[in-house]
Amino acid sequence: MASMARWEPDSRGRLETAAMQLFAEHGFDATTVAEIAARAGLTERTFFRYFTDKREVLFWGAAGLQDLLVTQVADAPPGTRPLTAVVDALVAAGGMFEQRRDFARERQRVIAGSAELRERELIKLAALAAALAQALRDRGIPDTAAELAAEAGVAVFRVSFGRWTEDPTRELPDVIRDCVTELKGVAAAS
Amino acid sequence: MASMARWEPDSRGRLETAAMQLFAEHGFDATTVAEIAARAGLTERTFFRYFTDKREVLFWGAAGLQDLLVTQVADAPPGTRPLTAVVDALVAAGGMFEQRRDFARERQRVIAGSAELRERELIKLAALAAALAQALRDRGIPDTAAELAAEAGVAVFRVSFGRWTEDPTRELPDVIRDCVTELKGVAAAS
Repeated sequence: MASMARWEPDSRGRLETAAMQLFAEHGFDATTVAEIAARAGLTERTFFRYFTDKREVLFWGAAGLQDLLVTQVADAPPGTRPLTAVVDALVAAGGMFEQRRDFARERQRVIAGSAELRERELIKLAALAAALAQALRDRGIPDTAAELAAEAGVAVFRVSFGRWTEDPTRELPDVIRDCVTELKGVAAAS
Repeated sequence: MASMARWEPDSRGRLETAAMQLFAEHGFDATTVAEIAARAGLTERTFFRYFTDKREVLFWGAAGLQDLLVTQVADAPPGTRPLTAVVDALVAAGGMFEQRRDFARERQRVIAGSAELRERELIKLAALAAALAQALRDRGIPDTAAELAAEAGVAVFRVSFGRWTEDPTRELPDVIRDCVTELKGVAAAS
């Protein structure tokens, strides 16, 4: 069976592309795993080798992103301010998304159309904020500052990501930096 | 039937108290509406006059809080900075909770113990942030600043509320003000 992999190059990518096409055509709720697999020219069994369910097609990247951001925060130079550590991590991770803008835009659209998916997205972002707050506490940042920096960072990421998917002329790290500048202005002026 | 109300003073309060006792004793999942009504000395029918389900006992206040905060933001003096408008609204609303600290602490504990309730709380807070962002846009604040001020304000509220339920010596408006000062420090230092 292991040799099958030779005949299924980039199965994950094909399944993802097929799923996003079907979500766009028929909506998330009306799309089945069987249809996704058929569109990708693969079996359902192959689908379930990569994803636990169709929702996972939209969220499988969240765990890797969270690990990457937490590692970056942990590895920031000693004395780095908490929001700086979070923002630097976001900017570094932001480059990763550059090849994935079309997917990201389509994903935003699918999620916006489903209450269940919007809730799942909120839960993932809250988990990300909690993980970043813990990474900051592990650096010795006190509780309140750690939580606020993590929440502010995730808010910046969420807002920037939305702006970036709408504006093909800009790169995500730049949008993030502008958004942080805006947050500083909002906080300073209050 | 209307005259029954004479024999059920503060039915909502009695149902709420009974529900919180039962959630603490047996857990949220194991508690039934029938048990809540019986503990309160009321009928299930009376319960459903006040709450759509047992979860609503924990969340019925959210709509009123959101309306109050949105109205306060809308009524802020012209030229008030966006985060100031949100924080002033939170501080004003914070006084309301002073009589409800025991309920709030118990509520936090019940919510922390259930994934379903934590998700419901996230959804309510996201709805609050969206409503506050819209109230700021209605005041002419540009999109990004409105979203960031609303998200930062809700983060401050969430963190402050947690601190306040744990520390009986402090009042919520003061905790909120301290938390905003901390947020300014976190943003300025980055």
